[in-house]
Amino acid sequence: MKQGRLILLSAPSGTGKGTVVAQLMRMRTDLDLSISWTTRAPRPGDVEGETYFFKSEDTFQALIDQGGFIEFAGVYGKHYGTPRAYVRQQLARGRHVLLEIDTQGALQVMRNEPEVVSVFLLPPSMQELHRRLSGRGTESPEKVAQRFAFAYEELKQAEKYRYCIINDDVASAARKVSAIIDAADCEAPLLRGHIQQLQEETVL
Amino acid sequence: MKQGRLILLSAPSGTGKGTVVAQLMRMRTDLDLSISWTTRAPRPGDVEGETYFFKSEDTFQALIDQGGFIEFAGVYGKHYGTPRAYVRQQLARGRHVLLEIDTQGALQVMRNEPEVVSVFLLPPSMQELHRRLSGRGTESPEKVAQRFAFAYEELKQAEKYRYCIINDDVASAARKVSAIIDAADCEAPLLRGHIQQLQEETVL
Repeated sequence: MKQGRLILLSAPSGTGKGTVVAQLMRMRTDLDLSISWTTRAPRPGDVEGETYFFKSEDTFQALIDQGGFIEFAGVYGKHYGTPRAYVRQQLARGRHVLLEIDTQGALQVMRNEPEVVSVFLLPPSMQELHRRLSGRGTESPEKVAQRFAFAYEELKQAEKYRYCIINDDVASAARKVSAIIDAADCEAPLLRGHIQQLQEETVL
Repeated sequence: MKQGRLILLSAPSGTGKGTVVAQLMRMRTDLDLSISWTTRAPRPGDVEGETYFFKSEDTFQALIDQGGFIEFAGVYGKHYGTPRAYVRQQLARGRHVLLEIDTQGALQVMRNEPEVVSVFLLPPSMQELHRRLSGRGTESPEKVAQRFAFAYEELKQAEKYRYCIINDDVASAARKVSAIIDAADCEAPLLRGHIQQLQEETVL
C-alpha cells in the first residue's frame, strides 16, 4: 500500500480558501480533511468528528505532554490541535490528508513533518482581498481592518511554503492543488519499493 | 512573464516513453520538445529543426568549448547535445521544455541545471518490458538481450530523479507527467514577484 501525502493549505482570510477546498473535495475521492481536536464547547451546527473532536482540557493537555500533536495553539483560552496519530493512520491507509491551517500552525507542521506538501493560496491583489473581506458584510469595519492588516503578516510567510497559487479563479486554483497532490504522489522515494522489485526481478 | 520549466524524461528502452510523450504533447499547448544538435548526417525522414539541428563537427566542438551544452555525448563517433541557449530562450518566453534523454545525459543536466524537473518512467515489470522489447520484432534477439540488460543499468539511476511514474497505462502516465508540470509551475520561487507586489500594494 502506497503512503498518502499530507497537504498543508494556508491563505490569508478572504482569499477564498474554503471555496477552493470545497471544490477540491468534490474533485478527489482519495482526500480527507483533517479534523482537529478542540477544547472549546460545541456550538449549534458542530458535529463530533466532522467539524471537530471535542475533548476535555485534561485529555488535550495529556496529548500535548506526549508530543502527540503535529501542531496546536491556544486561542482565547481554548486549545486547537492536530493529533499526529490520526494523520499517520490515514496516510498509512493510502489516503491523502488535507490540513487547512493558519501560517503559525503551518510553520509548526513544517518543522514536525518535513515531508509535508505545503501550499499557500494568494489573493490576486490586496484590493481584491479587501473587497472580499468587506463584501461579506457580516463583520464590523474594525474587524475587517484587523483581518486585512493580519493578511499582510501572513503574506510574509508565503515563500516558506513549497507551492503558491494565485486564487483568481476557484476551479483553476482547485485544479492546481489537485495537480500538486498528483505530483507529490509520484515523488521518487514513494516508488522505491517498485524500483527494488524491478531490480530483483529475473526474467527467464 | 513567468518562466517556463525544464522537464527531463528518461526511461529504459521499451518502457513506452515515446507513446507517453506523444500523448503529453497532444494534451498541452504550452510544452515544447527540445531539439538536439547532432553531427550525424541527416537520414530519410529527418527534418532540420524538427528531428535535429544538423551541425558540422567544428560548429559542435566550438559550442562544447564555450560550455554551451547542458548535456552532450558522443555515440559511434558522432555528437549529440542540448544547447543551453535554445532551452533558456524557450523558458524565458514562458514555454515549458521537455527533454527526452538517457540517464547519462540526464545526470549531466541535473548537475548543470539544478532547477530541472526530472521524471523517470518505470515499466510495470521487467517481464512486461521484455515482452515489449521482443514484441517490436524489428531487432535481433542479441540486440533485445543487450537493451534488456541495459535497462537494469538505467534503473539504478531511477531514484536520482525527483519523480517516478509506472507506465502501466499511457493516458494515466501522460496525465501524471502533466500534473508534475502544473505543480512545478506553482513552486513558490516562481511566485516571488506576485508576493512582493501584494506586500507593496497599499489599499486606500
